[in-house]
Amino acid sequence: MLKKADVLLTGGTVVTMDDSYRLYTDGAVAIAGDLIVAVGPTAVITQTYTASETINCQGKVIMPGLVNAHTHIPMTLLRGLNDDLRLDVWLGYLMPLEREFVTPAFVKLGTQIACAEMIRSGVTSFADMYYFEDEIAAETAVIGMRALLGQTVLIFPAPDAATYEDALVLCRRFIEKWRDHPLIQPAVAPHAWYTGTPEMNRACADLARAYDVPLHTHVSETAFEAQNSLEQNHMPVVNWIGKNGLLETKLLAAHCVHLDEGEMFALKEAGAGVAHCPTSNLKLSSGIAAIGQMLSLGLNVGVGTDGPASNNDLDMFEEVRLAALLAKTKSNDPTVLPARQALELATIGGARAMHMADKTGSLEAGKRADLAIVEMEGIHNQPQFNNHADAVYSRLIYAAKSSDVADVMCNGRWLMRDRTLLTIDEAAAKQAAAQVAADIDAFVLEREASPYNKLVLLAGVERQESFEIQVKVPVADKDNVLRVLAGDQLEITKASHYREYDTYFMFENGDPDAARLRYREDEFVGDNDETYQVRTRLTLIGEEERSEFQTAVMLSRSRFLATADRSLRFYSEYFAPARQVAVSKDRLRWRVVYQETDFAINLDKLTSPELPGYFLEIKSRTWSRTDAARKAGIITELLQLFGLDPLTAERDDYPEMVTAVRS
Amino acid sequence: MLKKADVLLTGGTVVTMDDSYRLYTDGAVAIAGDLIVAVGPTAVITQTYTASETINCQGKVIMPGLVNAHTHIPMTLLRGLNDDLRLDVWLGYLMPLEREFVTPAFVKLGTQIACAEMIRSGVTSFADMYYFEDEIAAETAVIGMRALLGQTVLIFPAPDAATYEDALVLCRRFIEKWRDHPLIQPAVAPHAWYTGTPEMNRACADLARAYDVPLHTHVSETAFEAQNSLEQNHMPVVNWIGKNGLLETKLLAAHCVHLDEGEMFALKEAGAGVAHCPTSNLKLSSGIAAIGQMLSLGLNVGVGTDGPASNNDLDMFEEVRLAALLAKTKSNDPTVLPARQALELATIGGARAMHMADKTGSLEAGKRADLAIVEMEGIHNQPQFNNHADAVYSRLIYAAKSSDVADVMCNGRWLMRDRTLLTIDEAAAKQAAAQVAADIDAFVLEREASPYNKLVLLAGVERQESFEIQVKVPVADKDNVLRVLAGDQLEITKASHYREYDTYFMFENGDPDAARLRYREDEFVGDNDETYQVRTRLTLIGEEERSEFQTAVMLSRSRFLATADRSLRFYSEYFAPARQVAVSKDRLRWRVVYQETDFAINLDKLTSPELPGYFLEIKSRTWSRTDAARKAGIITELLQLFGLDPLTAERDDYPEMVTAVRS
Repeated sequence: MLKKADVLLTGGTVVTMDDSYRLYTDGAVAIAGDLIVAVGPTAVITQTYTASETINCQGKVIMPGLVNAHTHIPMTLLRGLNDDLRLDVWLGYLMPLEREFVTPAFVKLGTQIACAEMIRSGVTSFADMYYFEDEIAAETAVIGMRALLGQTVLIFPAPDAATYEDALVLCRRFIEKWRDHPLIQPAVAPHAWYTGTPEMNRACADLARAYDVPLHTHVSETAFEAQNSLEQNHMPVVNWIGKNGLLETKLLAAHCVHLDEGEMFALKEAGAGVAHCPTSNLKLSSGIAAIGQMLSLGLNVGVGTDGPASNNDLDMFEEVRLAALLAKTKSNDPTVLPARQALELATIGGARAMHMADKTGSLEAGKRADLAIVEMEGIHNQPQFNNHADAVYSRLIYAAKSSDVADVMCNGRWLMRDRTLLTIDEAAAKQAAAQVAADIDAFVLEREASPYNKLVLLAGVERQESFEIQVKVPVADKDNVLRVLAGDQLEITKASHYREYDTYFMFENGDPDAARLRYREDEFVGDNDETYQVRTRLTLIGEEERSEFQTAVMLSRSRFLATADRSLRFYSEYFAPARQVAVSKDRLRWRVVYQETDFAINLDKLTSPELPGYFLEIKSRTWSRTDAARKAGIITELLQLFGLDPLTAERDDYPEMVTAVRS
Repeated sequence: MLKKADVLLTGGTVVTMDDSYRLYTDGAVAIAGDLIVAVGPTAVITQTYTASETINCQGKVIMPGLVNAHTHIPMTLLRGLNDDLRLDVWLGYLMPLEREFVTPAFVKLGTQIACAEMIRSGVTSFADMYYFEDEIAAETAVIGMRALLGQTVLIFPAPDAATYEDALVLCRRFIEKWRDHPLIQPAVAPHAWYTGTPEMNRACADLARAYDVPLHTHVSETAFEAQNSLEQNHMPVVNWIGKNGLLETKLLAAHCVHLDEGEMFALKEAGAGVAHCPTSNLKLSSGIAAIGQMLSLGLNVGVGTDGPASNNDLDMFEEVRLAALLAKTKSNDPTVLPARQALELATIGGARAMHMADKTGSLEAGKRADLAIVEMEGIHNQPQFNNHADAVYSRLIYAAKSSDVADVMCNGRWLMRDRTLLTIDEAAAKQAAAQVAADIDAFVLEREASPYNKLVLLAGVERQESFEIQVKVPVADKDNVLRVLAGDQLEITKASHYREYDTYFMFENGDPDAARLRYREDEFVGDNDETYQVRTRLTLIGEEERSEFQTAVMLSRSRFLATADRSLRFYSEYFAPARQVAVSKDRLRWRVVYQETDFAINLDKLTSPELPGYFLEIKSRTWSRTDAARKAGIITELLQLFGLDPLTAERDDYPEMVTAVRS
């Protein structure tokens, strides 16, 4: 009496990727519901099972669905928008675009395009990190792919959350909604250590542990990042994230290009997964991760495409091939990461790295039916040798292409048959994507003549985004201020004296990231009033976002910095601003610690145009509303210490103040 | 009145790759005979030309056919046979196979498979280097592709030439036969400096100059090669090939992974082309060529796939994408080798490197009609931005796949229409290739239990192939030999004393490369007869090829060396030889210079089994018959100097001699 299955795949080369790397050259797979119920020689399986659908896979390879261990799928809609740029310049183009365009509808459409592309290249599972992850989850579930989806948490305003606290709330709701879904594994995704604070990272780790869900983050992608960690945190990146609780979660660490062996060992001890993204790492010249070394230490390594804005595709055949090639040169040893192990990284290795190896990544009875059927008759894969068992892995890794994938099943459901997608309306998605691209084209073309682009063309830029809590009040008696500073209630860590000659170019271009450009000469003034250093910089300042607190204002704004090595006259002609305002001032500046909190204090005298009296500015960096409220309270205390009235606080910036005085 | 053309391609995005990188977004190309007669906007071209065949290319890209600047196309038939091995082990597998299987029929079939694959990926021109190049030329001409074909010249016995002198004769005939062909550009292909002698390289350069044909060779592929050149030649590789005349030819230098800036400059000054092969260089862990630096120096750089035994495909889309990615990481700068320049390398850059830019590589009136039509509607290339002109290059380099190529024309003739090959019977070629693979499988399986494979499995091996001219004569009076050596007619550069304990394992496996395995303990003996060093090695010795000269014998044989770190008993059991012969001897060894020629002289006393008297061996390395004849003459003089009779020369090796004595 034969057992009943739903689908029987027979007569193919079954590449199981199980613990013994079992291969069946005339093999079969029986599927019932969402599960694989049997794998073995065709003769054995067909004597045991019957099924309503039997598919002859002669000449084809039946393998586990590929696992894309790190990506940002909605960025398909930004594919090829800007390539071959420095990371900071690229972000300068991209981030304003994301703020403008990334909406729930955008990520839904991007998910469709990305899933279509991934299914076509044999992928059944992926690990994502982006915004509006709930929308991505809903669309992925409809399409029928398996995914680890991380809701992004970071300290900058994101398309779906103004602060990281908002993002954490979103993330908790997201986890509660999806945690029992058969396909979707929700996760917490703090973007990276350097876009977070210790508090933020600890909150993310706590959240992941509380719900027992994975945590997906970027780790040591660039040498710059690794160096910064050593300088700022006085420890390597992995030590820092460990100190902040991330190693106690089911961690998926993307990139890991610049790790020392101690960091690798710490990741291994933590049971963490590493997502290796070779194309992205090459394209952004981040470097080559030491995958050979990680594997020899026993780390769980998967392969990811990263987002299509830095790849520019989601082709896991290309990605794993590149991983296999690069590992050899990185290790200076052509035997490193041989074909079988490379395929392991792209299947069960990726599943392990994503903490989903109990469900997917290999063809074994009891696992979910996630698989791809690959045609091997392409001329690029001829002829085929069979004198050793590993030849099939060579064919899959070094010669096969994503276009060889004919059929894909995920969780027992066909997503593609004979290269036709069954769960995505590809034509409609393409058409909608074309409209998005046309809108973005129009947006970019309008920006073409913008100060931002002119600045990039001229000098390249460095981007800074800052959140500050600050207050500015007029000061009649500066000596009192100096007396308080000389007292012992404040700890002064640094004192400086500048003369600042600013010229503001005001634009009316409607670009919130390019509201004004400041040309500033800083004269550093020594003890005997001599100028000992001059620095000239251009700063393109975005419109401020303000949140008012009791006495202070929280500002967030973006800035693009560039060294100014030409004359003010040149810049004035080149940028052709709508208006131009010159402000000169004498500035005394102190860095102080008060109530264990860092503040900057400026005592400014406007010299041209001259304004009566002085202005005292008190500022501190902040990343969250809770922290801003606390610091606003301390600022009120500081004002009282200086004998100043918070109610006299000035809301305008100097250019507006001097313009108001003039008019 | 409209002009007549044969084919009009209209309404496509025409990517010309001309000197101004002209792009026509609604463009057309008019073709008459084998020539492009006009390129421009569709509206303009259709007002000027009419044609019997007009093809609407809306939504598609019309671009120059890709140029594969370095490959060994018949090696398609060895694709995936053995991967992830060290170069020497891989060669140990491959070279005996090539000697066994590479015939004119083999290279013809390999050409069909390779050309089918290349046409499918949009390639119209390639630069090859292999054996039986005349057969490759004939088949390429039938298929209709453009090619620079180099007949290989090297000092080892090749499938088509026993010596380099034979290869030079073949090469001259090959050039004379093909030099006026419209598609085939014959070339001289000395394999590499380290597989040649100065004389051989000079002869190749002379031949190339005499016929004004290109010279195609491998240059500085590995760090080992570059280091060896410094040690052996006391100069970098490019200086050495320059010294031997290669820079005065139309040089195509493949790989160029380890060049200093002086070498790059010398190549540029010589107008040489560089073929960059990134996949092969990674896969064999050779390193990453400094393409960014070469391009900034103004070198002509093309991209090649190398042979499919080290890639394992001929996909130029993959290759140029990898080139673009790697250049960024190599230069630590993501702006290096942007998409447009990458496509340039794969088209007109490759044509320049191959000295064929007058004919192919760009779409311009007057050039041969070599082009590919690429479909851009794949989901992996959505959406498409148009806010800057270079977006199409990004799409082609970073997202397009070879499977997007729909139509290919070479020299005005369609080679593929709508993904159907028109000049190759792909099914028949596949079937024939499957038979070759089955034959090779059988050959390899038979060798599986061979001493060679057992040695590789045990220890890995290092391969040496040697050509020696030598003589061995019995010596009754050793004192006379010593007297002559002490005299002033010979210059002694080194003297040593060994006791050698050899055990020969004799096999009857029919493998000419594994006729016997020698286990040798060398005891180095000091002045006071003390042993000061012991070395134990295994040497697998192939059957000798002998050419008899008047008094001496020229031997060529292959050897695989491995350190022996286990006991003789172990090896005896492990290799289970048919017979075993032990020979011990006391050896005095001198290196001498006579008539400006290096010789090694051994004075041997067989101690077990003991043979009466002594034997004098005189040896010198050689690479050509002319040189061997000269050295045979000097050896005769040397024998006379020692008072020995050339007619007493012993033809057998010691194991045979002691066996003959015993029986």
